[in-house]
Amino acid sequence: MEKLVPTFEVGCSGAPDEEPSEWYPATVPGAVQLDYARAKGLPPHWEGENFREYGWMESHHWHYRATFDGKGVASGESVSFVSLGIDYRCLVFLNGRELASHEGMFGTIRVDLTSHVLPDALNEIRIVCLPIPRKQDAPEGRAEAADSVKPPMSYGWDWHPRLVPIGIWDETWVERARPDEIVGIEVHPVLSRDLKTGTIALAARFAGGIVPETVAAHSVEVRDPEGVTVYSANTRKSSGKVTVTDPMLWWPIGEGPQHLYTVVVTTETGTSFEHRVGFRSVRLRMNDGAWEEPSGFPKTRSTPPIMLEINGRPIFAKGTNWVPPEIFYGTITPDRYARMIDLAVEANFNILRIWGGGIINKKAFHTACDERGIMVWQEFPLACVEHSDDEGYLAVLESEAIAIVKRLRSHPSLVLWCGGNELFNVWSGMTDQHHALRLLNSITYEHDRMTPFLPTSPVYGMGHGHYVFYDKTTDEEVFAVMQRSSNTAYTEFGMPAASPMQVLGGFLSEAGLADPMPGGVWESHHAYRAWGGGGDDTWLCESLIHSYFGSEQSTDRLVFYSQLLQAVGYQAIYEEARRQWPACSMALNWCFNEPWPTAANNSLVAWPDVIKPAFWFVRAACRPVALSAAIRRFSYAEGELLEFDLWLLNGSDQELEPMEVVVTVNAASALPGLPSDRDANDSLASIFCEPAADSDREMIR
Amino acid sequence: MEKLVPTFEVGCSGAPDEEPSEWYPATVPGAVQLDYARAKGLPPHWEGENFREYGWMESHHWHYRATFDGKGVASGESVSFVSLGIDYRCLVFLNGRELASHEGMFGTIRVDLTSHVLPDALNEIRIVCLPIPRKQDAPEGRAEAADSVKPPMSYGWDWHPRLVPIGIWDETWVERARPDEIVGIEVHPVLSRDLKTGTIALAARFAGGIVPETVAAHSVEVRDPEGVTVYSANTRKSSGKVTVTDPMLWWPIGEGPQHLYTVVVTTETGTSFEHRVGFRSVRLRMNDGAWEEPSGFPKTRSTPPIMLEINGRPIFAKGTNWVPPEIFYGTITPDRYARMIDLAVEANFNILRIWGGGIINKKAFHTACDERGIMVWQEFPLACVEHSDDEGYLAVLESEAIAIVKRLRSHPSLVLWCGGNELFNVWSGMTDQHHALRLLNSITYEHDRMTPFLPTSPVYGMGHGHYVFYDKTTDEEVFAVMQRSSNTAYTEFGMPAASPMQVLGGFLSEAGLADPMPGGVWESHHAYRAWGGGGDDTWLCESLIHSYFGSEQSTDRLVFYSQLLQAVGYQAIYEEARRQWPACSMALNWCFNEPWPTAANNSLVAWPDVIKPAFWFVRAACRPVALSAAIRRFSYAEGELLEFDLWLLNGSDQELEPMEVVVTVNAASALPGLPSDRDANDSLASIFCEPAADSDREMIR
Repeated sequence: MEKLVPTFEVGCSGAPDEEPSEWYPATVPGAVQLDYARAKGLPPHWEGENFREYGWMESHHWHYRATFDGKGVASGESVSFVSLGIDYRCLVFLNGRELASHEGMFGTIRVDLTSHVLPDALNEIRIVCLPIPRKQDAPEGRAEAADSVKPPMSYGWDWHPRLVPIGIWDETWVERARPDEIVGIEVHPVLSRDLKTGTIALAARFAGGIVPETVAAHSVEVRDPEGVTVYSANTRKSSGKVTVTDPMLWWPIGEGPQHLYTVVVTTETGTSFEHRVGFRSVRLRMNDGAWEEPSGFPKTRSTPPIMLEINGRPIFAKGTNWVPPEIFYGTITPDRYARMIDLAVEANFNILRIWGGGIINKKAFHTACDERGIMVWQEFPLACVEHSDDEGYLAVLESEAIAIVKRLRSHPSLVLWCGGNELFNVWSGMTDQHHALRLLNSITYEHDRMTPFLPTSPVYGMGHGHYVFYDKTTDEEVFAVMQRSSNTAYTEFGMPAASPMQVLGGFLSEAGLADPMPGGVWESHHAYRAWGGGGDDTWLCESLIHSYFGSEQSTDRLVFYSQLLQAVGYQAIYEEARRQWPACSMALNWCFNEPWPTAANNSLVAWPDVIKPAFWFVRAACRPVALSAAIRRFSYAEGELLEFDLWLLNGSDQELEPMEVVVTVNAASALPGLPSDRDANDSLASIFCEPAADSDREMIR
Repeated sequence: MEKLVPTFEVGCSGAPDEEPSEWYPATVPGAVQLDYARAKGLPPHWEGENFREYGWMESHHWHYRATFDGKGVASGESVSFVSLGIDYRCLVFLNGRELASHEGMFGTIRVDLTSHVLPDALNEIRIVCLPIPRKQDAPEGRAEAADSVKPPMSYGWDWHPRLVPIGIWDETWVERARPDEIVGIEVHPVLSRDLKTGTIALAARFAGGIVPETVAAHSVEVRDPEGVTVYSANTRKSSGKVTVTDPMLWWPIGEGPQHLYTVVVTTETGTSFEHRVGFRSVRLRMNDGAWEEPSGFPKTRSTPPIMLEINGRPIFAKGTNWVPPEIFYGTITPDRYARMIDLAVEANFNILRIWGGGIINKKAFHTACDERGIMVWQEFPLACVEHSDDEGYLAVLESEAIAIVKRLRSHPSLVLWCGGNELFNVWSGMTDQHHALRLLNSITYEHDRMTPFLPTSPVYGMGHGHYVFYDKTTDEEVFAVMQRSSNTAYTEFGMPAASPMQVLGGFLSEAGLADPMPGGVWESHHAYRAWGGGGDDTWLCESLIHSYFGSEQSTDRLVFYSQLLQAVGYQAIYEEARRQWPACSMALNWCFNEPWPTAANNSLVAWPDVIKPAFWFVRAACRPVALSAAIRRFSYAEGELLEFDLWLLNGSDQELEPMEVVVTVNAASALPGLPSDRDANDSLASIFCEPAADSDREMIR
């Protein structure tokens, strides 16, 4: 088998059969918008309000063209065009003839070119990407994504401008092979419930059409985590099963090693396909106490189980909601993925929820999670939109979902499938009866039933929110809200903060930076009017800061105080969720990262990878062993009694030795007099930054 | 095609290959226990404690044998053994040779005998039914049914003794046909959401093996509800679709006519297959107000939609929980079904929940519901048992469920599929993650997705219970419990009463009748210690009666008072549920009927079809237009103020004319002095029986 990676050019026109008037170099994988911007020298989409200059592109037809030499194509040889991802609808032409049309960005596209290749000439492959999908009569925004399997975030969110990528966004090539030659391997590892038997089901994709029982000769080898070959065979079978007795198990970080087996299939022609797989069992277990509720009559159901049990061991899931780290997700590199996931490890997290408003990540993401022991909660791309029972939509969803499940089920880190985000709440309007969710249940059951499936988050018993430090409607701070709550899992809670000054300075002018206000760059970067539920000054929350710290604040003080509230608020939530274990078994904040530089957002890591102070507070709150003070409010006046319960949280698998605990209360200052008092501020700042001190960082590893 | 219905004999032995020592005449359909009892003169299983004499039979092998003449079997002809239901596991032999084994009582068994038939001799067909399934190491009772698709009620319930049927329980025959001849038709009618297009998908079963595209010539005719032919064709296709434009719709009773189309397929040889189908759309709609909840943060999901919407019209479901009307369900005749369903119509019900602890009913049941407009909520046979993810169990469940769905989806009355009863409560221990329920969701989605599916009852927001008139644990009567409850649906609420005296006299001796007490026949017929949740004197509830009416009570007075409490209690619940419309959309009591004569039970109709007084109260409460007094407690002392809200409930589709309402309060007597006062009792009795008076019965039609 031979892969030719052609060099594409791109151009735009008004119709599939209308030739572009100009062609520009294309970066593949990537997005047409970036190619155009590069060619035309447009300023970066993330600076100021430049993204508005990119808006028109979503409505055009974008042509990719490339040539490959037909010389050397042997008679009887199979030639295919293969792409791992074209976003979102496209037509595929060879030498001007339309050979295929495709909808859906996650499934692999394979187009058989064999009978149309000119063997002794240059052949032109052309991909025409159609304008973005927009549901008819939908209002502008994510509802436009309701009849497509396109990430709805791209249509605009409270941390994402409207910018909808188009183009080839994953690896793409022209493939030559013998028709009976293997061109890909699907692997599906399953661990028996008693943990004693691992099986790896193997299925070959081959160059020809219908899957035969036998294909060209090839070898199959399985090596254990220490490199010892535990299985080896030569065969012509196109599918089979390898059994591994008493396999070495894959564990989440903090629970044990991340053992990975290597599966290598090598063809006669020397092509090798390598997969790394792991064995772990996963089950959702009933949260403690949940079976005892409800106690009275009339009696409804008990809450569904949410406690992750890996290899028979219940685990508190400490983590965060992941969004794509770039608006133009086709540009995300394996290194970028790895750097971000390393930060999740640094935060003492063991799980990432891949939120349904975004993309299905590329393989490199999952490989990195496998290797680091970061569990993955994987949602399908549905979020806050009502997807109807339309047959056309369901057909695309079905083929996309099957492709997604077959591709990702080999990764031991993937521990949970989920239909999508907040679908069973009024702003989405979906229910258990919607065909899309019944279909996703069916597909995950058929293709990966040993991994649990949730229809959405939140399900009954789980909580989403709150997203404020102080709730005006109930007159409660985050401490009170959390201490009166009892949920099986907190799978989305936010706490906004301004981005660090260097991030703000990267996209704001000097004058703009000095003067936060609604209506311009601050607003389009989500500091104002971003989220209806939070009032006009969401996410910057100036009025809240003013109420705690006084109304005269420079930008750097605003940033400082908002980050302080975020840090203290997030710490309170993670620790309270841990205190509620084992009735509660998850704490995932909204959100980990962001795809462009926001002015303010709930993220812990600003774009591209700038840590906010809250990150260190969360890191401390998520230490396996942590002291936790259940404080009741943010500020105390002189003479008031400070009362709190002190907890020692032990999430390790060790019993703790007796220890002496010393609690020091550092009274930063009497508030709200503080803001005008530089010294007191500095004292507060020193407390604030303490968790990041090196000595502490050592201690909390 | 020719059907031979052979005459079977039955006998029992200790093993499949051990010949029975005696043979008795068998009634098919039926049950081996009844055949044995008939042959041996055993007293009826429902009298006294005779059922105990039937217990040993469940552990034996039961052989059915019959002969048919091979004379006339033409060469090339196909001969099959066909049974619509053998309960539960069996082997099929022809002339001493084992040809098939089968597990599951609901799927049709077809065994091809062709190559083994002796053409010029008598052939012996033999069915060996194996002992009942019992999960290894399970405690005695319904948990024994955990690895089978057998109705768990048979293993004992609080209204059912342990008596587990075995045998051929549905129509069974030997079939001769040409191999390409049609021997059965599957029909699947679907109405488009806009109600404008009905399609009937047709698929032929034919005598030979794999389904071909063409079979022997046959005609297809579709007639509309008025007998007009709307489609007619001659064809050889084995499947196809008939489209009916602007079809006449099927409606539930009280909402419109029950229009049924007739589909007739006639083969060349003159065999006709007739199905009656109807067109209706069904959807579960969000209950009013449910999207507004939950209001605060952290926010869990909204309750799932439970309001039935038929042909776009929301409907309050008034009904009841149906259990098999006989322990030996193989004996239920079409007439018996029809009589019971007529009683449901008489009660002003429009829906029956076919509770998952029992059987899937035979065709006659569903035909009767289609014709009368009684909606059917159909559960799969899972109830109060944890079915594991065992592959063997799931394989049987899959084949049984596919057979059930394909058989019943043609009936317009079937408006809801449901996984089973109370599976998401602690006494069952199942959750959304159990493979059985994910599988049932998948199967109903694949084969009948336009009919909604619930995993179980109750789901979140629905209520089950209470099952008492007075709740000791909360010191509340039913009035208070219901008026503080807010559920989307009340899908199981009980209110126990003794059976009528004539029913009690049918299974109790004269001495026994006079002296209710735990430990003997009264207890085995569920008057005492039947339900753990209700205390020792459940379901007779003597102590409650004593507390209201004094402790000296003759049996007939006990019966009278318990029936009074049942009547008043049920009336209160149905009316309160109706008052909660449209936040609440269903009221289904537990239960409608019973499979043998109980001494006390929550049923409205005692075995076999004896109406309890509560029936008339429920009938009145379920009138389309009804006055309803929201009274707050059962008894008032002299001088106390009687306060209540008076509601006019209008469940009809008519606006009501202005009317004058006259409320008369009949003070029966001051309680608890009443029981010793015959006259006061009689006055109470006259009020009690009033709703059954003819004038009232006229009025409430």
